[in-house]
Amino acid sequence: MSKALGEFEQISQIMAPLAQKAKGAFSLQNDAAVLSHAANEEMVITTDTLVAGVHFFPDDPPESIAVKVLGVNLSDLAAMGATPLHYTLNTSYPSEITTDWIKRFATGLQKMQDQYGITLIGGDTTRTPGPATFSLSAIGTVQQGRALERLTTSPGDDIYVSGTIGDSALGLLAAQGKINDPNGFLLDRYRHPRPRTKLGQGLLGLATACLDISDGLLTDLSHFQAGASLCITDIPLSAAARELVSEDSSLWSSVLNGGDDYELLFTVSPQKEKELMDLSETSQTPVKKIGRITEGSERIVLDEEGQPLKLKTTGYRHF
Amino acid sequence: MSKALGEFEQISQIMAPLAQKAKGAFSLQNDAAVLSHAANEEMVITTDTLVAGVHFFPDDPPESIAVKVLGVNLSDLAAMGATPLHYTLNTSYPSEITTDWIKRFATGLQKMQDQYGITLIGGDTTRTPGPATFSLSAIGTVQQGRALERLTTSPGDDIYVSGTIGDSALGLLAAQGKINDPNGFLLDRYRHPRPRTKLGQGLLGLATACLDISDGLLTDLSHFQAGASLCITDIPLSAAARELVSEDSSLWSSVLNGGDDYELLFTVSPQKEKELMDLSETSQTPVKKIGRITEGSERIVLDEEGQPLKLKTTGYRHF
Repeated sequence: MSKALGEFEQISQIMAPLAQKAKGAFSLQNDAAVLSHAANEEMVITTDTLVAGVHFFPDDPPESIAVKVLGVNLSDLAAMGATPLHYTLNTSYPSEITTDWIKRFATGLQKMQDQYGITLIGGDTTRTPGPATFSLSAIGTVQQGRALERLTTSPGDDIYVSGTIGDSALGLLAAQGKINDPNGFLLDRYRHPRPRTKLGQGLLGLATACLDISDGLLTDLSHFQAGASLCITDIPLSAAARELVSEDSSLWSSVLNGGDDYELLFTVSPQKEKELMDLSETSQTPVKKIGRITEGSERIVLDEEGQPLKLKTTGYRHF
Repeated sequence: MSKALGEFEQISQIMAPLAQKAKGAFSLQNDAAVLSHAANEEMVITTDTLVAGVHFFPDDPPESIAVKVLGVNLSDLAAMGATPLHYTLNTSYPSEITTDWIKRFATGLQKMQDQYGITLIGGDTTRTPGPATFSLSAIGTVQQGRALERLTTSPGDDIYVSGTIGDSALGLLAAQGKINDPNGFLLDRYRHPRPRTKLGQGLLGLATACLDISDGLLTDLSHFQAGASLCITDIPLSAAARELVSEDSSLWSSVLNGGDDYELLFTVSPQKEKELMDLSETSQTPVKKIGRITEGSERIVLDEEGQPLKLKTTGYRHF
């Protein structure tokens, strides 16, 4: 790794400043980090790996890659209703990665740390003959026994999503030159997840089940392991996405099955709709009712003409 | 990944059984796992990445790779005096990895889980166009405020190591065909770390500082950031290593600077020598005094003739 700092220098000069607020990080000089939660809390841990050429483009700006690596994990914490606390980061760099690249990557991490109140607490740096690979584990806290789960919804609950769906999948198509993205909105959505941390925290005790959409709306809907009925005309789209699907309705497949939305998909009892609308306002997060949990296990999605769509059972997979 | 199961099937069929004892793992079906510690404890977290061709040989038996991936992290927990609890595992597989390979890898993990009382609690599986890459984060518990640290030693403290030093570095040379290893003892030491968990737990309140030797004895000695004086004749060697260095004294460099020992390097006040010897017996872990912490910052290593060795300031680095 001739163009970059050695492992120890890289840790002390570039990464340790990201850990300075975490006492238990020992300035990244220890074998391990120490952390704890309050007596009435428990910890939530999630982890994701992102590989250059699989989960992001190798020539994406390093700041953007950092936002995505930390963002996808923050989104998982949000889906549990957890408050972000710490993260560990393992980086495997090919030889062409420069010190400047790593510094820009750290800048992106710092920006996310400031925005979401999460702090680096440990990690590992290795070289690799393969593509740049990042494994991040994010740790949050939640009140004991209150973490949101996936398998706890009931027939009659309304199904909601946050934000808009499909932008990121369309952004990937734009990056591949397959569709137009004149102002770069869709590409921005592909590169920069916006974890719904405040919404997730507010859903504790309010949502009956929750998860984040990473594999595509329809695939993730199946993870409730419940029957569902929804209509695609209720699915919230951005102006850019709406224009594209109105021109080419085959793009609906990308919207419904594309990955990387990092919006929350959750269910709420109809009696609590007002409470949810208040939360949407205080958390400044748009939410939209898209359907209802039904008896049985069938998932029915109605198209614009009210006809059932033939559903793919599996959506987009990174794997 | 045509030869292997898909991500979801792989998780449910091969990985979920490793997580069945961890209630907070939700059978690996949730966005994140939930875990907690007792009121008088705190958590210790460590993480390491191992890359095929960098940290192990791609054609090493999958069971052995599993032992190494989990073992190097258990060794970090041992260095903190922590009791192993849970781990998360991120795997990035190239297309040639088969389902049978992954099953054998899981067998190795299960063996380590049974031996060290640690349980899988979460993870991620991706594909990679590069080499097989494993990132593991291990979590343990320790009594509040008692975790062993690196920078807390004092002049006059004796320096100890567990086990024998250099076997793994010599095992790597054997694997590369550079030296003989007639009965495979050295290669076994390279492939299969033996985390010193019981010794580490016993060192709580006894050792004044502790770390595990992963980058080589002399490099890791420098991590105490203290002066030290030791003599190589006091460094414990296996019979195999002793024979090799007696035939070729240049191999001392590998013994002192080679990595992957995964033994504990720690300091103890001379008044507590008897207590340490009792611990060595009860934990069934050999320990050996190799020198003493001195005033200042100079580290002096005397050779077999009592002459100071010219020390390399940096030992072996994976990076």
